[in-house]
Amino acid sequence: MRALYFDGKLKYIEDYPMPTIGRGESLVRLILSSICNTDKEILRGYRPDFRGVLGHEFVGEVVDSDQLGLIGRRVVGEINENCGECLYCRTGRPSHCDNRKVLGISGKDGCFSDYIVMKNRLLHPVPQELPSEIAIFTEPLAAALEILEEVHIRPSTNVGLIGDGRLAYMIGQVVALTGADLTVIGRHEDKLRAFSSFANTTTEAKDSYEIVIDASGSPSGILTAQKIVRKRGTIVIKTTYAGESQINMSDFVVNEVTIKGSRCGPFSPALKLLKSGLVNLPTIDLYELKDYERAFESKAFKAGFKMIN
Amino acid sequence: MRALYFDGKLKYIEDYPMPTIGRGESLVRLILSSICNTDKEILRGYRPDFRGVLGHEFVGEVVDSDQLGLIGRRVVGEINENCGECLYCRTGRPSHCDNRKVLGISGKDGCFSDYIVMKNRLLHPVPQELPSEIAIFTEPLAAALEILEEVHIRPSTNVGLIGDGRLAYMIGQVVALTGADLTVIGRHEDKLRAFSSFANTTTEAKDSYEIVIDASGSPSGILTAQKIVRKRGTIVIKTTYAGESQINMSDFVVNEVTIKGSRCGPFSPALKLLKSGLVNLPTIDLYELKDYERAFESKAFKAGFKMIN
Repeated sequence: MRALYFDGKLKYIEDYPMPTIGRGESLVRLILSSICNTDKEILRGYRPDFRGVLGHEFVGEVVDSDQLGLIGRRVVGEINENCGECLYCRTGRPSHCDNRKVLGISGKDGCFSDYIVMKNRLLHPVPQELPSEIAIFTEPLAAALEILEEVHIRPSTNVGLIGDGRLAYMIGQVVALTGADLTVIGRHEDKLRAFSSFANTTTEAKDSYEIVIDASGSPSGILTAQKIVRKRGTIVIKTTYAGESQINMSDFVVNEVTIKGSRCGPFSPALKLLKSGLVNLPTIDLYELKDYERAFESKAFKAGFKMIN
Repeated sequence: MRALYFDGKLKYIEDYPMPTIGRGESLVRLILSSICNTDKEILRGYRPDFRGVLGHEFVGEVVDSDQLGLIGRRVVGEINENCGECLYCRTGRPSHCDNRKVLGISGKDGCFSDYIVMKNRLLHPVPQELPSEIAIFTEPLAAALEILEEVHIRPSTNVGLIGDGRLAYMIGQVVALTGADLTVIGRHEDKLRAFSSFANTTTEAKDSYEIVIDASGSPSGILTAQKIVRKRGTIVIKTTYAGESQINMSDFVVNEVTIKGSRCGPFSPALKLLKSGLVNLPTIDLYELKDYERAFESKAFKAGFKMIN
């Protein structure tokens, strides 16, 4: 099968071995897969140990499974494959499983290919009326929803969101639905325009906010957050990158700021929210798998691969 | 009056001007004052803009006040003088007041002197049966209790405490009273012995903890905390220091760790706890004010100044 394989560099392979399913697993034929910022970070060295097929956002069709009801269903899938036995699995934190494999990120081939194998329990059927071009946003929307799982955003809370990129656009809409007073702080006037229907926008971080969300994708995001968060306020960090930041932690102590890291989120509410039509989604810019270099360079809001029609 | 004045360097002054009281204020004659690690950090450059008398931990006697009931009372005092009008004062965060002065730290003369002026509302009378040598620990014990104000430590929580110094000793006892399983991680076998009656102790950080408290006083504390905190766990930082740390924030994102800065705490519960006798306190090593250099070099658990007998 076709696959984009990462071994420190990304390569297009025509005859990558077909995966085979075991107990409790399904073989999924990919319909669409899309590029996440994490994929780009991996190409920049964020996960130096990863070897395998890249990609973790997908919509596919189950073509074989020992759970017969799944066969023929269109599905999306959670990216963390947990062991079910470690401390984290036993204490309600399966996405932090000590022995976990992460689709296209750690220990498991991802979805930039014709087929993947997934645990049945990680698959979520896509409602029939939801086009694949919308369902493909389940994983990033779930990651945005994870913020609401972690912090209580009240209608009276003022929230500063740093970043005007893809993830920020999903987060911004999810936060706006809470009724909170949202201000998006970005660097690009043109990108910020997309946020103006549901948020205040600015290119200059000057006010103070009870909750600041860093979705800048840049090591400087946390420093901006430090400047604009209120005392006893909360910073939620969504940004991951290779390397370190130079930070004065004493400021956080003196101001009793809470910092919360936030990663993957819940799929079911994300699918429900997509179905509701309350989230605006742009058109995805689709490529053939072999044209991956152009896909990775796409300036579109979201780029991806169309595997079958 | 006598005073230890800081202007980038600490100086002993014999004829520092006597302070005078205004409305809502008391003149306090110092009985005891003690040296906190923050004082030492200020001498190392932590607060380059501060000019004034150093010191913020004290027990004194009110000798003049427009609140007549206070005159003659032995008191301790909160260190943050707030304005009562800013956003933080209006939203229940007076210790974070935008216009606050902080005793011996920012904008207000401290207590390494014969007299200080304090707002009446920041003074707490010391119960008669509580010796000044015990009451002097109110401020550091309140700072330890602030951790319990900020995070819920359950009897079933396992807690790692980094540091074997003065602040750690107060924090350790306060945490142990919750019933939590506490492990103290320190560098000095001899200092760790003092913790062994109420905690596990180790010189090697190897286990993982739901809550990790950094009271190391060192920029490396946060890095040790990062290594031993559980995924979705919480790090409480008590350490302040001049300068920055080199930190990989992505780890906190991927592991969804919460970091909470923690500073000054509530005085009333601290006085109540001191009165209960449940906290072990060492003997304070006392000096004359003019012997401040020796006091600052003291290796005792706590050193301070005896102002009157």
